[in-house]
Amino acid sequence: MHMSSNKRVWLFQEGNAGMRDLLGGKGANLAEMTNIGLPVPPGFTITTEVCNEYYTNGKVLPAGLMDEVRAAIGTVEAAMGRTFGDPEDPLLVSVRSGAKFSMPGMMDTILNLGLTDQTIEGLIARTGNARFAYDAYRRLIMMYSDVVMDVPKEQYEHLFTELKKQLGVTQDTEVGADDLKRLCEEFKAHTRANSGRDFPQDVNLQLEGAIEAVFRSWMNDRACVYRKSEDIADDLGTAVNVQSMVFGNTGDDSGTGVAFTRSPATGEKTLYGEFLMNAQGEDVVAGIRTPMDIKVLSDMNAAVYAEFVEIAKVLEQHYREMQDIEFTIENGRLYILQCRAGKRTGTAAVKIAVDMVHEGLITREEAISGRITPKSLQQTMFPQFTEKPKDQILAKGMNAGPGAASGQIVLSSADAIRLAEEDPNAALILVREETNPDDLAGMLASRAVLTSRGGRTSHAALVARQFGIPTICGCDDISIDHRARTISAHGVTLKEGDWISIDGTEGIVYTGQLPSEAPKVSAEVGELLQWADDIRSLGVWANADTPEQAADALAKGAEGIGLCRTEHMFLGDRVPLVRKLILADTEDARQHALDQLLPLQRKDFVDIFRVMQGRPVTIRLIDPPLHEFLPKESDLLVEVTRLECADPNDARLSELRRMLDAVQSMHEANPMLGLRGCRLSIYMPGIVQMQVAAIIGAACEVQKAGTRVHPEIMIPLVGHVNELKWIKDRLEKTAQDTMKSEGVTVDYMFGTMIEIPRAALTAAEIASETTFFSFGTNDLTQMTYGISRDDAGRFMKLYVDENILPGDPTESIDRDGVGRLMSMCVNDARAANPSLQIGICGEHGGDPSSIEFCHSLGMNYVSCSPKRVPIARLAAAQANLAKADRDK
Amino acid sequence: MHMSSNKRVWLFQEGNAGMRDLLGGKGANLAEMTNIGLPVPPGFTITTEVCNEYYTNGKVLPAGLMDEVRAAIGTVEAAMGRTFGDPEDPLLVSVRSGAKFSMPGMMDTILNLGLTDQTIEGLIARTGNARFAYDAYRRLIMMYSDVVMDVPKEQYEHLFTELKKQLGVTQDTEVGADDLKRLCEEFKAHTRANSGRDFPQDVNLQLEGAIEAVFRSWMNDRACVYRKSEDIADDLGTAVNVQSMVFGNTGDDSGTGVAFTRSPATGEKTLYGEFLMNAQGEDVVAGIRTPMDIKVLSDMNAAVYAEFVEIAKVLEQHYREMQDIEFTIENGRLYILQCRAGKRTGTAAVKIAVDMVHEGLITREEAISGRITPKSLQQTMFPQFTEKPKDQILAKGMNAGPGAASGQIVLSSADAIRLAEEDPNAALILVREETNPDDLAGMLASRAVLTSRGGRTSHAALVARQFGIPTICGCDDISIDHRARTISAHGVTLKEGDWISIDGTEGIVYTGQLPSEAPKVSAEVGELLQWADDIRSLGVWANADTPEQAADALAKGAEGIGLCRTEHMFLGDRVPLVRKLILADTEDARQHALDQLLPLQRKDFVDIFRVMQGRPVTIRLIDPPLHEFLPKESDLLVEVTRLECADPNDARLSELRRMLDAVQSMHEANPMLGLRGCRLSIYMPGIVQMQVAAIIGAACEVQKAGTRVHPEIMIPLVGHVNELKWIKDRLEKTAQDTMKSEGVTVDYMFGTMIEIPRAALTAAEIASETTFFSFGTNDLTQMTYGISRDDAGRFMKLYVDENILPGDPTESIDRDGVGRLMSMCVNDARAANPSLQIGICGEHGGDPSSIEFCHSLGMNYVSCSPKRVPIARLAAAQANLAKADRDK
Repeated sequence: MHMSSNKRVWLFQEGNAGMRDLLGGKGANLAEMTNIGLPVPPGFTITTEVCNEYYTNGKVLPAGLMDEVRAAIGTVEAAMGRTFGDPEDPLLVSVRSGAKFSMPGMMDTILNLGLTDQTIEGLIARTGNARFAYDAYRRLIMMYSDVVMDVPKEQYEHLFTELKKQLGVTQDTEVGADDLKRLCEEFKAHTRANSGRDFPQDVNLQLEGAIEAVFRSWMNDRACVYRKSEDIADDLGTAVNVQSMVFGNTGDDSGTGVAFTRSPATGEKTLYGEFLMNAQGEDVVAGIRTPMDIKVLSDMNAAVYAEFVEIAKVLEQHYREMQDIEFTIENGRLYILQCRAGKRTGTAAVKIAVDMVHEGLITREEAISGRITPKSLQQTMFPQFTEKPKDQILAKGMNAGPGAASGQIVLSSADAIRLAEEDPNAALILVREETNPDDLAGMLASRAVLTSRGGRTSHAALVARQFGIPTICGCDDISIDHRARTISAHGVTLKEGDWISIDGTEGIVYTGQLPSEAPKVSAEVGELLQWADDIRSLGVWANADTPEQAADALAKGAEGIGLCRTEHMFLGDRVPLVRKLILADTEDARQHALDQLLPLQRKDFVDIFRVMQGRPVTIRLIDPPLHEFLPKESDLLVEVTRLECADPNDARLSELRRMLDAVQSMHEANPMLGLRGCRLSIYMPGIVQMQVAAIIGAACEVQKAGTRVHPEIMIPLVGHVNELKWIKDRLEKTAQDTMKSEGVTVDYMFGTMIEIPRAALTAAEIASETTFFSFGTNDLTQMTYGISRDDAGRFMKLYVDENILPGDPTESIDRDGVGRLMSMCVNDARAANPSLQIGICGEHGGDPSSIEFCHSLGMNYVSCSPKRVPIARLAAAQANLAKADRDK
Repeated sequence: MHMSSNKRVWLFQEGNAGMRDLLGGKGANLAEMTNIGLPVPPGFTITTEVCNEYYTNGKVLPAGLMDEVRAAIGTVEAAMGRTFGDPEDPLLVSVRSGAKFSMPGMMDTILNLGLTDQTIEGLIARTGNARFAYDAYRRLIMMYSDVVMDVPKEQYEHLFTELKKQLGVTQDTEVGADDLKRLCEEFKAHTRANSGRDFPQDVNLQLEGAIEAVFRSWMNDRACVYRKSEDIADDLGTAVNVQSMVFGNTGDDSGTGVAFTRSPATGEKTLYGEFLMNAQGEDVVAGIRTPMDIKVLSDMNAAVYAEFVEIAKVLEQHYREMQDIEFTIENGRLYILQCRAGKRTGTAAVKIAVDMVHEGLITREEAISGRITPKSLQQTMFPQFTEKPKDQILAKGMNAGPGAASGQIVLSSADAIRLAEEDPNAALILVREETNPDDLAGMLASRAVLTSRGGRTSHAALVARQFGIPTICGCDDISIDHRARTISAHGVTLKEGDWISIDGTEGIVYTGQLPSEAPKVSAEVGELLQWADDIRSLGVWANADTPEQAADALAKGAEGIGLCRTEHMFLGDRVPLVRKLILADTEDARQHALDQLLPLQRKDFVDIFRVMQGRPVTIRLIDPPLHEFLPKESDLLVEVTRLECADPNDARLSELRRMLDAVQSMHEANPMLGLRGCRLSIYMPGIVQMQVAAIIGAACEVQKAGTRVHPEIMIPLVGHVNELKWIKDRLEKTAQDTMKSEGVTVDYMFGTMIEIPRAALTAAEIASETTFFSFGTNDLTQMTYGISRDDAGRFMKLYVDENILPGDPTESIDRDGVGRLMSMCVNDARAANPSLQIGICGEHGGDPSSIEFCHSLGMNYVSCSPKRVPIARLAAAQANLAKADRDK
C-alpha cells in the first residue's frame, strides 16, 4: 500500500527501511543505512508518488517539485560543505531510479551531475586532477545526452574509440586531460548537432532534466517487459535518488566494488564480490576491466577491508538477510552507496535461510515464509545446462517440463521405443507436433520432448511434469517435415538423429549437445522441508500411476496418492486386449476380454498398495473416451484407401474396414464432452466392475499378506448426483462380493471428482452421497472457461501477451471464475457433509499460488506429480503462514 | 399437497370437488355431483393416502381398512335398500381407480362386484332377467380373474367366442341365459385351473381383492409409462371408488353413453358424444358395437335427453369448464356415473376458453392461466397438407386427432418403438385394428395413427387428442393382413414400410407422401394471444437469420430479433470467397477477400433492418470455428491418397495437399472449446471488423432511406471481461468510422452472450462493460454439464430412461445447475449495472418451463424460433400469472 503524503522529497535521514512503497527499495535502504550510522554520501529521495503524479499529469513534473528539491539540495550542500553549481568547489550528485522492487539495469541513471564548463574548473582546483575531472565531465555529457536528450550513448563511445585510435592507445586511462577536454568539446558539439539543443550549463536545469528522465524511464520498453515477467505492477512507480557523488576514480587510493555478504551461488557464508581500483561503479558492472576478488582488498587496504567486513556484518544483522552492497573508496575513505537483499540461486536461497535459522538470525517460520520461493526450491532439483551458448539457440517455446537434456532428434514414438530398445543408453529427444496417450511409451523412452503445438497443460506437458521429462511445448517456430524426416526453425534445418538440447526450465531449444549437471538434494533442503511439514496443515499427496512413481513420491515426502490414473494400465502390451474388449460384438466376447484383463489389473494395484503401506491410494476409474485406445481414423483411412488402390481384393481389407467402421462409429465431435468418465461406467458397466473387483481383490490380497491398505475409489466426471448414486450402488455390490469371496474386509472409500461445473454447483446434493471430493481442476478449468487445452495453443499465448488474461488459467487457478465455483462448492459441500474429505488432483495441485488458494478454502490435501511434492510441501507451509499473518 | 387425514373412507356425500388430492379426480367429482343433487348412484371413496400406505406397507392393505369399508357399504346398503351379499336382493358395486389426474384406461376396474352363485339368484328374482344376470356374472368373473387373479381376459373372450361358434351365432346378445350360465361355470373352472384358486364366493373377499388390485394397478407398466410421459408424480397414488351398480344392459329402455358438453375436436358449443342402448359402458369405450350420436337420444327418449341436456348445462356452469360425462340409463332412469373436465384438442381448448370468456363464465386470466397449455396451443398449429390429390385417397374414417403427417406403415407398436429407437427421425404411421393402453409407447413413437375400428371416444382417439397425434379412427374400409404384413382398402394393397399420409383434421388417408405446411392461426388463437400480450411482462423475440424468417417472426408476434446468426451468411455461393479469406497467406489476399464480402454482408443486413422497422435486431458476430467452412479432412485424405496411388504426378495434387495441410493445421480436438466466438475476433480481427462495418453501414443506409433501425451487436463466447473490452474498443472504432463516412448516426448497442460458465460467474465485471446480456443456454448447458449435444446421443436416452436425469437439460433449463448459475449471473449483473438488458436466445427460449424460469429471474425477453413465438407469448403470460399467484 502506498503511504499517502504531501511530502515529495525526503532527506535520507528522514526515511527508513519500512518506506519502500514511497521511497523505493534503494531510497529506503539509503535512509536506513544513514540512520544506523553507516558512511552513506548525503542525499535525498523523490517519492514514487511523484512518478505517478508525473504520469497522471501527462508527463509533466508537478508544480513546486523543483522548489522542494532545491531546499533538499541546500541541506546536502550544508552537509558536504559544497554548493551545487559553485564554480569554486561544486557539489556533484548522482541521479538514480529506485523502485519498490529491484529492476536492475532497466531504468536510467546519471552520474557526475553538476559539472559544467564553469564548475569543472572548481573540481580541477579541488582535486588537482584535470584528467579525472574531464573524464567525469565526458561521462556526464554522454550519459545526459543519451538519457535526457535522446542522442544514443553508442555514438559518444564511438567518438571516444576514434580518439583512442588517433592517439594510438587502447585503455581509457591512457588518454590525458587535454585530449579528454577536447573530447568533451566534441561531445557537446555532437549533442548540439543531433538534438538541436545545447548540453545545459545551468546545473538546476541539468537536475530537472535528469529527474524527469528517470521518471520517463519507468515506462521504457525494457522496464515494462521486465515488470511483466516479474509480475510487478505498472502503477508502483519509481522513486528518484539524488545523492552527492563520491569518486572511485580519483586515483589509486580510490576504487569501487560490489559484494554479497554470502555466496549468491552456493549460499556459503563468506564475502563474495569484486572491486576495481581507480574506477567508477559502472566500470565494474560493464565488465570492461576485469575486477578483482573482494578478498584481495584486504591485501591492498587492510583497514578499508576490515571496515567493509564490519559494515557487511552490521548490515546482515540489521536486515537479517544476505545483502548485496555497492561501495566506493574515495581517496582511501569507504562509502556505502547501496545495499539490498541479494539475488541468489535456489540452492543458495535454501542454504542461507537454513544457516540463518541455525545462527539464530531468523525463525523457521521466517525461513519458510519469506526467504524461499517455490521457484527457487524447484531450481535445486532439476538438472541444468552448465553452458547456454546464445548462438546455438534454435527456437523458444513454453517451458512445460523443467530440467535440461541433450539428445538425438526422433520424430515418432515407435522409433523412439525401437531405438531405446536397441540401445538403452540412447539419448533421444522426441519431436512431435503434439502427443497423445499413445505416445506415452515413446515419451518415456526419450530424455526430453519437444512439441510444436499445445500448451502447458497439453498431454505432453502433463506427462512431462508427472514423469519429470524436460519438455518444451507449443514451440510453433519449429516445423516438422515427416516426409523429409527433418525439423526446421528460423532457417536452420536438422535431420532426424541430429543432436539438440532442451532447456525445459527456460523453454529454449539449442542445437547440438550441451553439458548439464544433475542437482544434489542438499541436507539443507531436507531440513527446510521438514520444518515446512511441521508448519503446514494441508496434506501433500502425489499423482502416481505405477509402483515406481509411488515409491518416488513417498521418497519426496508424499503422504498418499491423490490420483492413480488407470487408463495408462490399458496401454502397452495390453492394447490388443483392450481393443478386443471395445470391439466385442457379443456379451461373451466382452466378458472374455474382461476376464483376461482382471488379473493383470489386479497385479497393478497389488504392487502400488505394497509400496504405499496403508496410506491412501486414490484410484480413478477409467476416464478417457474408448476411441483413444483404437487406431487413428486418418491413419486407417489412408491405409484402407492405399490397399484398395493396390488390390481391392487384399485379404487384410476386411479386418481393416471393420476397425475403420468401429473407429468412425465412435467418432465424437467434442470427445472431452462426450462418452467418457462416469458416463462410460453407466453405458458399459463391465469395465469399471472389473476395475473395482481388481482394486478390492488386490487390497484383500495385500492385507492378507500383512500390509495395511486404504483404497479410495474415485468416480470421474460426475455432473448429477444420480450418476454417482447409480454407479456407487452397483460398485459397492462388486466391492462387497469381492470381499466376501476373498474372506476379508478392507477399509475403502468411494468418492467423486469435481471437474464438471454442474457438480460444483450442486455440491450439497453430491456431498451427501459420498465420502470425498477431489477437484479435477484441469477439466473444471477447461469447462468453466470453455477452453480446450489441446486447442488453446493458437490463442492462449496471444491472450497472455495482450494482457487479455492475467495468466494461463490452466497454470494457476483462476480465482475469480473457477475459484469462485470451487469456493461455493467447498462451502456447500461442507455444510451438507461436514466430514467430507476434499482435495485437488489437477495440475494446479503443484502450483504454489493454487496451493495457497486451496489452503484458504480449507481443503484437506493437494495432490501433484511426485517431482512437485517438495515444492507443494513448501507452498503449503507458506500458505499456512500467510493465512496466519492475514488472520492476525 | 396431500391433505392429511386419518379418515380413510369417504362417502360421496362427505366430499367435494376440492378434495382431488385425497379422493382423486373421479371421487371428488362424484362427491361434488352428489352434493349438488345430481342422480349419482351412491358410493364412497378410499383415499389416495391408503394407496401410498399400501406401497409403504410392502403391498399390504392397512389394518382396519376393511372395517371402515364395511361401515361405508352399510350406508350405501341403507340408501339403496339392498344388502351386499344378500341372496334375495343383492347390492352390486363397481370398483374403480381414480387418481388426482385422469389416466384413462391405465388402471383396473371391476364391475358387477357382489355377484356369486348365491346372490345371482336374487338378481334374477329382482330383474326377472336371467340372461342379463348371467351376462353380468360372466363379465364379473372374467374381469375379476384377469385383474385380481392374473388369468388373462383374452382366454375368457376366447371361450366366449368358441361358445358363440358352437351356437352358430355372432352377437353376444344372441346367447341365451342357459348358455351364459354354462359359460359362467366354464369361466370359474378356467379360473380355478389357471390360478389354483376359486373365484371367491364371499362378497367381502371379492371386494377386498378388487380394492387391492386397483391399488396394485397404480404401478403397472402402462400406468408408469403414462405418468412419465405426462409428468405425473409416482407418489400421488390412486383412490378407489366403490359405487353401487346401475345397469345399462337390462333391456331396451336401458343404455349407456359418454358425452362432452362442447365438441372436444373443434370446441363448438354443442353436445358431442355417443351412446348405446342395452349395453354396459365398457361396450362404448371398447368400440365393439358402433354407438349412436348423442343427439339421436332425443328421438329415442326425449325426457331422458332433456334431463341430460339440463344436467350437462348445470355441470358446465358449476365447474365453469367443459365436461366429459358418463351416464347410464337403467330402465328409463338416468344416472350420472362420472364427470370430469373433458380432454380436448388444442383447437377446441382455445375456442372453448375464448368462448367462455365471452360468455362471462371465466376471466381472461383464467383462460390464459388454467385452460390452455402451451402444448395445446401448439396443436392448433399442426401442419396441414398443401395438396390433397383425390386420386391418392385410400380411405376415410373418423377425424379423431387433428393435424397431418406422412410416414411409413408399421403394423405393431413393438416395431414402431424399435424403428424409432434405431432412427429417431423415422417417420412412422402406426396402423392397427384398434389400440389399447399397451399401445401407448408405440403411438408416441409414431407420427400418426390409423385404426380400422373404434369411435371418437375410443382409446386411440383419447390418446390422439391428448398428445396431439394426427389420428384417424374407425376407418373400417381398411383391412389389415398381419401374416402378409399388408393393409388394403378399395382394392389397393400397401406393404408395411410403404408411405401413407394421414389427414387427421379431415379423416382422410392418402397413399404416398404429401407436402404439408403450418396452419393459419384462428381468430380465437389470435384473440387469446392478444390477451396474453396484455398480461405478460416478458418480451418475446425471435431467432431469425434471414429477411423471410424475420417477416415470419413479426407475423407471429415477435417484438425483435434476439439472435441473427451471421455464419449462415457465409455459406452457399459465398463459400469460395470465405475459403479464400481463411486460406489467405498474405495480408493483401485476406483484405481482398474481406473487401469482396463486405457489400454482400451489408446487403444481408439492409434487408433484415427493412423488415424489422426499428425493432431491435441482435446480430451475433461470427461464431463457429473456421474449419467448418473448409472441406472435411477425411474426404480430402481419401481423395489425395487415391490420386497419389493413381498418378503421383497428378497436377491437382499440389492444390489438394495445400488444402489438406490447411485443414489439418486447423484441426481441433474439441472444436466447441477451441478457436471460435470472440477468440476468433481477437485472433483474426479482420472478419468481425468487416461485419461491424457491414452492420453499421447497412443501418446508416436504411435509416437514410427513412426507416428506423436498432442493431444490437452481440459478441459471442466471452469468458473474461477483458475479451469483451479488447474487442469492443476496436469495434466501436469501426462503428464510429463507418458512421462518419456515411455521414449519419445510428442507435446501436454492443452486448455479449453469456454462454461460458465463467462469464456467468464473473457477471458483475462483464455487466459493467456492456449494455446487454443474452444467455446462450445451448452452450451454457453443454459446458456446465460437460456434455456435448452432438455426442450425447449414445447416453442421454439411457440417462433419461434410467431416471438418472430428470429430463434432457438441452430441452428444459436444468434449474439446479445451469439455472443456479443463471440466477447468480442475473443478480450480480443487475447489481453492477441496473439498466442492463438481459435476454435468452438459446433453444430454451421457446420452452414453456424455461420461459417461466426466465421470467422468475427477471429477464427482459426470451428469443426463440419464429415457430414457437405464439407459444412463448402464452407461456410468458402464464409465467406472469403464476408468479402473481405465488406472490399473493
